[in-house]
Amino acid sequence: MVSMVLKGWDNALREWDDLLAGISDEQLAKEIVLGRNRGVYLLGHLIAVHDEMLKILGLADLQYPEWQTLFIQLPDRSAPLPPAALLRTTWKQQCDLIRNKFRQLTVGQWFDRHRLISAENFVNEPHRNRLNVVLTRIAHVHHHTGQLALLQQATA
Amino acid sequence: MVSMVLKGWDNALREWDDLLAGISDEQLAKEIVLGRNRGVYLLGHLIAVHDEMLKILGLADLQYPEWQTLFIQLPDRSAPLPPAALLRTTWKQQCDLIRNKFRQLTVGQWFDRHRLISAENFVNEPHRNRLNVVLTRIAHVHHHTGQLALLQQATA
Repeated sequence: MVSMVLKGWDNALREWDDLLAGISDEQLAKEIVLGRNRGVYLLGHLIAVHDEMLKILGLADLQYPEWQTLFIQLPDRSAPLPPAALLRTTWKQQCDLIRNKFRQLTVGQWFDRHRLISAENFVNEPHRNRLNVVLTRIAHVHHHTGQLALLQQATA
Repeated sequence: MVSMVLKGWDNALREWDDLLAGISDEQLAKEIVLGRNRGVYLLGHLIAVHDEMLKILGLADLQYPEWQTLFIQLPDRSAPLPPAALLRTTWKQQCDLIRNKFRQLTVGQWFDRHRLISAENFVNEPHRNRLNVVLTRIAHVHHHTGQLALLQQATA
């Protein structure tokens, strides 16, 4: 079960990375749909969401706290974004960090509660474990991969 | 494990359905990105892919065989599509059918091989079971939900 979810994580990231590798910084700077998020915002958004995920899993403190606002709370074009090259590098480093952290967890720890649920509530809602957090983030990656795919095809 | 995947299926479908409910037939007839798939094609595409999924799972014959070509092999605008209203009704019926079929499977049957792998190969690749097919289709729904979300926001 745990290995199936971790494989799902790897698959989601690989799909995103394969797409991203075929998209230039210039293309990333374009909006996917007129007036909506640019590719570069989506990349930063995934980094910020996964940064928060590590915190929720109790595996690390926020590495890029200022990006929580920039890429989660604020919509695109609210403030200048970091350069695409920096986001790409950060993304790779973060993916490595996450894989390492994931590997260190035992099966029991995967089924333990995450940081957003109290010990009392976890008794009645045992599905709110670490593994479930990763499952929802896998879905989230696929959601935005579908959007990134449009960027590639639209500007190809 | 099985119930976690089935919950993932329900969540993916609910997210899609919530979005779809807020999108008119007129909006569905629009392209998500200029020159790319229309919303109505995405809806038909999900139906065709899930129709094929039931076959791969060994749970049913194809219900809409002609849509395999129309919504999987051919890109959008290759041929006239069925009306959105018919696709919406078909989608609902299919979702109900799938939930019923899923409920009838035992845990052991979920971990049994699917129709695209032979008994011999399954010995070496036991992860190619029914549950894994559903996991990949969940990812697929999220991929296109991300695109449908753009349609809603772009034309709102």
